[in-house]
Amino acid sequence: MIYLDNAATTQIANEVLTAMQPYLKDQYGNASSLHKKGQEAKEALENSRKKIADLLKCSPEEIIFTSGGSESDNLAIKGITYKHKSGHIITSKIEHPAVLETCKHLEKQDYEVTYLNVNKEGIIDLNQLKNSIKNNTILVTIMHSNNEIGTIQPIDEIKKICKDIPFHSDAIQSFGKIPIDIKNFDLISISSHKIHGPKGIGALYIRKGIKLDKLIDGGSHEFNLRAGTENIPAIVGFAKASETMFKEINNKKVINLRDKLIKCILEIKDSWINGSLKNRLPNNVNVSFKNIEGEALVLRLDSKGIAASTGSACSTKTLKPSHVLLAIGLKPEESHGSLRLTLSRYTTEKEIDKTIIEIKKIIKELRDITPFGG
Amino acid sequence: MIYLDNAATTQIANEVLTAMQPYLKDQYGNASSLHKKGQEAKEALENSRKKIADLLKCSPEEIIFTSGGSESDNLAIKGITYKHKSGHIITSKIEHPAVLETCKHLEKQDYEVTYLNVNKEGIIDLNQLKNSIKNNTILVTIMHSNNEIGTIQPIDEIKKICKDIPFHSDAIQSFGKIPIDIKNFDLISISSHKIHGPKGIGALYIRKGIKLDKLIDGGSHEFNLRAGTENIPAIVGFAKASETMFKEINNKKVINLRDKLIKCILEIKDSWINGSLKNRLPNNVNVSFKNIEGEALVLRLDSKGIAASTGSACSTKTLKPSHVLLAIGLKPEESHGSLRLTLSRYTTEKEIDKTIIEIKKIIKELRDITPFGG
Repeated sequence: MIYLDNAATTQIANEVLTAMQPYLKDQYGNASSLHKKGQEAKEALENSRKKIADLLKCSPEEIIFTSGGSESDNLAIKGITYKHKSGHIITSKIEHPAVLETCKHLEKQDYEVTYLNVNKEGIIDLNQLKNSIKNNTILVTIMHSNNEIGTIQPIDEIKKICKDIPFHSDAIQSFGKIPIDIKNFDLISISSHKIHGPKGIGALYIRKGIKLDKLIDGGSHEFNLRAGTENIPAIVGFAKASETMFKEINNKKVINLRDKLIKCILEIKDSWINGSLKNRLPNNVNVSFKNIEGEALVLRLDSKGIAASTGSACSTKTLKPSHVLLAIGLKPEESHGSLRLTLSRYTTEKEIDKTIIEIKKIIKELRDITPFGG
Repeated sequence: MIYLDNAATTQIANEVLTAMQPYLKDQYGNASSLHKKGQEAKEALENSRKKIADLLKCSPEEIIFTSGGSESDNLAIKGITYKHKSGHIITSKIEHPAVLETCKHLEKQDYEVTYLNVNKEGIIDLNQLKNSIKNNTILVTIMHSNNEIGTIQPIDEIKKICKDIPFHSDAIQSFGKIPIDIKNFDLISISSHKIHGPKGIGALYIRKGIKLDKLIDGGSHEFNLRAGTENIPAIVGFAKASETMFKEINNKKVINLRDKLIKCILEIKDSWINGSLKNRLPNNVNVSFKNIEGEALVLRLDSKGIAASTGSACSTKTLKPSHVLLAIGLKPEESHGSLRLTLSRYTTEKEIDKTIIEIKKIIKELRDITPFGG
């Protein structure tokens, strides 16, 4: 199988699984227990926290573990917001559902939300950001890079505009793939299963001094910010996966394969790339084909042993037009014809070559049978 | 090592880890993806959901997976409560922190909470429950059995009093150990890592027709009640662990070892059992010794290779007197001398015999050196 859906989830790296195994077997203690088994769990927890903090260049006390990216986003946004009785939040139209739906939830309460426009490359409107800031703006939340089209935001410029307003970023697709300059952020969501780590674990960077309401109340775990027995095997795996990914930031091999894929796909008539060619995640390809249904394309690729996606994995079941593609200016019928191919360190040139051949064949077949013509 | 801290966490059973391995390795798909790898993940998810639903005798649609017991408790209590602008909640004084702290959090908003007293065995005051119900009572949340002293609540009688008021129960220590009669409940929290399953996964039973606010907004996973990529390896492990535990409900071997342990420990002068002898979890022993510090006892046992606890794992770090032991009438100084020993299917008679010998020795040593005398 050729797996080109690494933005949805990734395989666990061998060295990550190896690092996890002792904690799945003999070292099963609860990190809150006083005895040796508890203390060895606690040590693994704090070592892992320090590893991730070192990679992000922050203090271990600024990293708290969560069950994944969606929880991190919810904790960041609700955590800041609920410290205020009311207020104004700024986000963008192309955020992940974990951010967008959280904002919609808050709009039903006494909070107001501005959803920034993006240009056709998916870059937010910086003037609109500047003009949207009010006296009661309590949070700006803008993703580091987009999960569907791979567009990387101009974070330095966003930070300059935000000044002292707390700035959160969903950096789940960026973490381990491109540099993240922590000085720009007050809160950063990251996740393990997008970087060859296990599922069910993520983290939230919280700059020292930023105060949050808890999302999950209970025990005083995670500096009293997130209750629940710590998931040590997953945390150890997350730290290991992060270490390996950080050695491969801006992975050249992946970028070259991505560029070959884009170039060859764009040879197909009536096709175009979605997002930015310049400010793009190393592993993301998102293309559209006129008069093609993305779902049909993905299913035919699947039958050839190629795993890809259309829209984001989170909304595949609804088959609604992608909110991201609509926001960059595609018409609903155009947004249905998108194909997302997301690479990993394990992707080979042979796989890319085969994928190009199959896509060209399938597009031809589909166009031959559609009433729209070719 | 003799591990007698199974109420804090348990080792993963071999057959559970075996069931998880394929999903930690090759079958790593995202259950929301359209392609085969996604669909095989989706199938594992739904098979696991059905297994747990069958064991609890409910519909698969009534089970949603969470990151663990604390999240399940928060989702249940906040989920119900936030459907109302204000209202009254009834709970007990001996709940797990995930329930108690959630209730305290709600008290800071426009909700009122009644904390029911318990008798010296840890059974809630049923008359007080009856008299506490008001027109605006929106939720009763009372644990199925207690994590520290193992007391099982008279659920049938509680349900009769609650009638149509939504009734949630933290059944995390009961699930897989004693029968749970689902017809009594509207919401039940369960967890995997207390029953030889992996950490980082739990579930909430939500009776059909009960409406909840989401705790984690985002994608429409889990019947649109809990966003976030499903943790398939952990879910598969949880289902497998549940199946095995349900074959051993009211485990006779565990009960016999528990009773031997209680009988022999109570031969020690100035010792007593906390909780009920009759309505007690099969694997729970909680004893107190006059003029003994629980922490010193646990650390000495640890040095002999015996893992035990004092208070609950969640509050060991604070070393505050246990709120449960205070609620059953112990004085603060008495509550410091408690020892919790929690057994599992893997506990052997030889281990119990050694534990009894060591406890007797250590108590004698500690009393010989304390200023209080023996």
